[in-house]
Amino acid sequence: MIIGYQGVPGSYSEEALIQLFGENANTKCYKEFEDVFIALQNDEINYGVLPIENSTTGSITQNYDLLKKYGYYITAETSVKIEHNLLALPGANINNIEQVFSHPQGFEQCSNYLKNLPNIKQIAYHNTAISAEYVKNQAQKINSAIASKRAAQIYGLEVLVPNIQNNKENWTRFIVVSKNYESTAKSDKLTILFEIPNKIGSLYQILEKFSKEKINMLKIESRPVGDGTFSYCFYIDIEGNKEDINIKQAIKNIGKITKDFKVLGCYKKNV
Amino acid sequence: MIIGYQGVPGSYSEEALIQLFGENANTKCYKEFEDVFIALQNDEINYGVLPIENSTTGSITQNYDLLKKYGYYITAETSVKIEHNLLALPGANINNIEQVFSHPQGFEQCSNYLKNLPNIKQIAYHNTAISAEYVKNQAQKINSAIASKRAAQIYGLEVLVPNIQNNKENWTRFIVVSKNYESTAKSDKLTILFEIPNKIGSLYQILEKFSKEKINMLKIESRPVGDGTFSYCFYIDIEGNKEDINIKQAIKNIGKITKDFKVLGCYKKNV
Repeated sequence: MIIGYQGVPGSYSEEALIQLFGENANTKCYKEFEDVFIALQNDEINYGVLPIENSTTGSITQNYDLLKKYGYYITAETSVKIEHNLLALPGANINNIEQVFSHPQGFEQCSNYLKNLPNIKQIAYHNTAISAEYVKNQAQKINSAIASKRAAQIYGLEVLVPNIQNNKENWTRFIVVSKNYESTAKSDKLTILFEIPNKIGSLYQILEKFSKEKINMLKIESRPVGDGTFSYCFYIDIEGNKEDINIKQAIKNIGKITKDFKVLGCYKKNV
Repeated sequence: MIIGYQGVPGSYSEEALIQLFGENANTKCYKEFEDVFIALQNDEINYGVLPIENSTTGSITQNYDLLKKYGYYITAETSVKIEHNLLALPGANINNIEQVFSHPQGFEQCSNYLKNLPNIKQIAYHNTAISAEYVKNQAQKINSAIASKRAAQIYGLEVLVPNIQNNKENWTRFIVVSKNYESTAKSDKLTILFEIPNKIGSLYQILEKFSKEKINMLKIESRPVGDGTFSYCFYIDIEGNKEDINIKQAIKNIGKITKDFKVLGCYKKNV
C-alpha cells in the first residue's frame, strides 16, 4: 500500500500521514495538491493525505474544489498542531536575512511576526518543507524559510526564531482521500456535497431536514460553482453514520431538492 | 474625499474604485489589505475599496476577517471582469521567461495555463499590478507578470499571452468599506455577522428566521473564530433593507440566539 502526500519529508502533511498510517508507511510525495489526485487516478497510490482546514486561516479551498473535480472520497481525518519557525542556515543572522520562503498560508499564519520585517521579500513556495529544502540547497545566509522544527532537523537548518505563528493554538485538519467510498460501522461523520437553486429559503430547507432528524452539523463551506456567476455549491460535515436511520432519511430528502448531491465520505471523527 | 485601495494604479481594485467613485476621485494606494483598514482608522481616507469575492476562486477571506477585526462597515459593492494576461518587457520572448510575478490568486486563476510552463518560477506578490511595475523596474527580459491589460499600458509592458485565466468568465466583487454605517432607502442588500453555539440545528434556527420572513439569502461564508478550535462565525448576505419590517423582525429574532451579532452593512446590490 502506498500513501501519497503533497510536499517533502518534514512537511506537516507527512506528520499527518504518520499519525494516520504509522512511521513505516510506504509514502510518495508530490509537488502540488492536484498531483496527489492525479496519482490516485493513475493508481500510483492507494490513498492521499491532504490538508482541508486550518483553525486560523480556514479551509484549504483548493482541496474542496479538487474533491469535487475528481469525484473522490474522504475515508479518514486527523489534525496536526502547526508550529511555524523562522529557519535559516547554521550561523545565519536575522539582521542579514533578505528573503523568506514559505507556503502562502505560512505567510498568512505568521503575518503579525512578518510585519516587523517589512524589508524581507516573501517568496511563495508550494510547501513549507520544500521552502526549507530550497534554503538548504541554495546555501545562502540571506535566505530563510517558515517551516516546522522537524523540517529544520531534516534539512540541517537552524531555528532562528521559534513559534512565530499569530495564534499559538494553530491546528490543521487533514483528510485521507481515496478513489473508492470506504466506511465502517464506527464511522461517525459524513461530508456531503450539493448545489442548490438560488431561491428564498433553499439552504434553509436543506438544514431543516437535518434539524428534523436531530443531526448535528459540524461545518458548512460554500464554494463558487465556477461558471463565472456568483452561485455556490455546499460542502457540509454532519455527525452520524450513513447507515443510521435518521441520516438515511435526511439524505433521501435532501437528494430530492438539491442538484448533484453526493456523499463525499463517511469516516471517523478526529477533531 | 479620499478613497483608498490596495495595489497600485492599473490594479483591478483601482478599476473597481473608478466604477464606484469616477475617474476623478482622489485616491491613495496601500501595500496590504490591512493597510487600507489602518488608513481608515487613522482618518487618512474616507472609504476603502477592497475585493471580497471572485467567481472562480471564491471569497477573499482576509477581508472578511479584517471587517470583523476592525469593526467597520460595507457601504457599497461593484464587480469587475478579471482578464489576466502574461506581460513582459517589449521584445521579450516567451521561451526565455524564467520567472512570473503575480498575486497568489492570479496564479490560482491561471493554473491551467501555468501547468504548461513548469520551469517558470512563480513568485507571489502583493498585487497583480505591483508585479507588472516590478517587472518594468527590474528591466530584465526573463521576468513576466500576470496582470491586466491596463497594467500593461500603464507600465509599458507587452501582452505576451492574452486571457490566460482558467475561466473566461472571471469576475471579482469589490466592497466599499467605511468606519461608519451608511445606508439609504435604496439599499437592497445586507451583510450580517454572528457566531453561533455548536449545537444541533443552530444554523438552521437562524435560516428559519429568514425563511419565515421570506428573505432571500444570497451568500453564506463561514470563517474560523480564530481561537485554535474548529468553530466558526458566519457572514451572511441577504436581500432587503434594514428598515423593511420583515428584515427588522428577522434581525431581532436572530440577535437573540447568536453571539456578537452585527449588521456589517446595508447597501445597493450590484451583482
